[in-house]
Amino acid sequence: MKNQFCPGFLATGICAGLKEDGEKDLGLIYSTTPASAAGVFTKNIVKAAPVLLDMERIKSGVCQAIIVNSKNANCCTQDSMAHALTMAKCLCDELNVKEKLVLVSSTGVIGEPLPIEKIKDAIPELVKRLSESGGKDFAKAIMTTDTVPKIVSLRKKVRGSTFTVTGVAKGSGMIRPDMATMLCFVCTDVKAESGQLQAALSPAVDKSFNRISIDGDTSTNDTVIILANGASKLSIQDSLVRQAFEKSIHEILLNLAKMIVKDGEGATKLVEIKVTDAVCYEDARKVADTVAHSNLVKTALFGEDANWGRIIGAAGRAGVNFDPERIDIFFDDVLLVKNSIACGKSAEDNATKVLKKDEFVISIDLNTGENCSASVYSCDFSVDYVKINADYRT
Amino acid sequence: MKNQFCPGFLATGICAGLKEDGEKDLGLIYSTTPASAAGVFTKNIVKAAPVLLDMERIKSGVCQAIIVNSKNANCCTQDSMAHALTMAKCLCDELNVKEKLVLVSSTGVIGEPLPIEKIKDAIPELVKRLSESGGKDFAKAIMTTDTVPKIVSLRKKVRGSTFTVTGVAKGSGMIRPDMATMLCFVCTDVKAESGQLQAALSPAVDKSFNRISIDGDTSTNDTVIILANGASKLSIQDSLVRQAFEKSIHEILLNLAKMIVKDGEGATKLVEIKVTDAVCYEDARKVADTVAHSNLVKTALFGEDANWGRIIGAAGRAGVNFDPERIDIFFDDVLLVKNSIACGKSAEDNATKVLKKDEFVISIDLNTGENCSASVYSCDFSVDYVKINADYRT
Repeated sequence: MKNQFCPGFLATGICAGLKEDGEKDLGLIYSTTPASAAGVFTKNIVKAAPVLLDMERIKSGVCQAIIVNSKNANCCTQDSMAHALTMAKCLCDELNVKEKLVLVSSTGVIGEPLPIEKIKDAIPELVKRLSESGGKDFAKAIMTTDTVPKIVSLRKKVRGSTFTVTGVAKGSGMIRPDMATMLCFVCTDVKAESGQLQAALSPAVDKSFNRISIDGDTSTNDTVIILANGASKLSIQDSLVRQAFEKSIHEILLNLAKMIVKDGEGATKLVEIKVTDAVCYEDARKVADTVAHSNLVKTALFGEDANWGRIIGAAGRAGVNFDPERIDIFFDDVLLVKNSIACGKSAEDNATKVLKKDEFVISIDLNTGENCSASVYSCDFSVDYVKINADYRT
Repeated sequence: MKNQFCPGFLATGICAGLKEDGEKDLGLIYSTTPASAAGVFTKNIVKAAPVLLDMERIKSGVCQAIIVNSKNANCCTQDSMAHALTMAKCLCDELNVKEKLVLVSSTGVIGEPLPIEKIKDAIPELVKRLSESGGKDFAKAIMTTDTVPKIVSLRKKVRGSTFTVTGVAKGSGMIRPDMATMLCFVCTDVKAESGQLQAALSPAVDKSFNRISIDGDTSTNDTVIILANGASKLSIQDSLVRQAFEKSIHEILLNLAKMIVKDGEGATKLVEIKVTDAVCYEDARKVADTVAHSNLVKTALFGEDANWGRIIGAAGRAGVNFDPERIDIFFDDVLLVKNSIACGKSAEDNATKVLKKDEFVISIDLNTGENCSASVYSCDFSVDYVKINADYRT
């Protein structure tokens, strides 16, 4: 099972020569039968051609193959849409599926012409390499600044039968999909209509990828697509299956989201910023977002400096009303700040020990008595982040 | 005139031992007569004690002295307000002015107790050192991570008489006063009521310090205070004086704001992000803010990489409606992108030359035909920014 992609699907990834180092840069997911499809796309008003194409095609609710290239976003060039259409056309000819059933994704640098000839030339080889164990190659082929491929599978048993959900993702610059494109493709062998998939996907995205991204901070290419081909014969019409399926989607997407944060550009730590006891969920989330995205908090995390003044300051500018004199802050279970005042040297020493861990939780208790909470997953902000992004295109 | 502070005012800055390196850390501005006063304070709901004190005291519209310490924000500690009151009380005893006429500012680390004894001990020396040429010492005493003192004076002649406006400021982490406190003190010898000062100050702050700061991104201690003591006998009741005065305030604050950006932590470039031909001013400003504050744009500026895809991507997520296919981008007068498509290699080569300059303008033309524009002053985001902020407290 370890190298097995979701039953009823084949995948692969090869080098088409877009990346100069000979790394894989062209990937393909193929469902052996037409699959129900749903998607969530970037809210950025500047959308790459493949996104515009997929948004149109996915309306049919059916898809059989997704071709993805990395290194080039195929966005903002004269021939972006023509190239996206060519990718789809060449692939459908080679696969012998209907053109409308092919989706296209691209990720990489904006504004540079897509080397479409290289992709065309590589498509026969791409199709030939499709296999049941090609998921990891696909995951490698869609990477940009990611340092590890990201693929997660779950099998669940319901009424004596088993279904599988496999998710593959690529990450983004630091912790928000801000122009460094987050892509995620989920394959499952449950039987579901497109509308049912969408109903399961949207809330799961909101509680995973949107928990690592501040509202609206989207790239031109961000895409999450789910395909369900029914190979397992388990249908989400059955409420037991539906519940197990929705739980699996949540789990897979949250896992992938955390993997993305952990592999954020230059990141050395995965930090959950948890806001508790807010008046409402929206307030909790606003405070968590503002703290999670503060450059000053993130650099202090990198420096392993328990500089809680920056945390309290970021909380204070989140646009949320709370009593500024009643904030408690925990690093894991170390109480560092009580009623907005530091708990002393030994608390700080213990908090500093927590900061040295690879993963920990910073809890901010607003003490409003209303018991609403929200979490955002963040990472630290290192010297390497700047180095990576100062010369991304070279 | 070079070392002269504003007529009718004395200033100084000394070392009270708060900074460990023997640098100046305690400053004083004193008006020889009670002055009209107005101020603009942080919108952060977590406000440092000195800010709360000043907001209350400035309601009287009169002030005679401002004492400022750096290195410690006097915020979020048990005795913050008691210490702020003690600073004011000790100073008024020494100066022999009414306690209510003394304002207090602090800047530095949040949450650590203010070493009030050191400040009390230093106040007699502080008062003794007051002089007409002490402006630069004051400017040095309020610095935190600033690398240069920031002081600007203007003299204007109206109806045969001269008035002076002198502004002193300290900067902030990177380009926004986000938890790294921006302070600014303006002294003038025009005659004006507090309300008139406020009417001149608020729009000038909006067009200067708020042009380097995204909306609401304020620290616990941000403060701009203006004092007018009438020593010049020119009154802003006279509309000619008022116009010249308002122009001077704008010029002084914009100069100081640019100095702050240029001296941003780790900054190597001053970049004006100018959005033109938007539907309205608010739209132009939102786009300019989003581009100016994008970490990915800022790291590309540091890397001298003309990565306009990041600019167009940031513009696209600003929450403003425009035609994504009609954007033009200029680096100074080099047209790099026309109708959202790159202008080719020679344009990119020329844009890369512009990027090597210390100061330049990136213009983003939205081509809506409505002719509204806005500018934000930004800087690049360097490896040194992370290094400075990773261990700010040590």
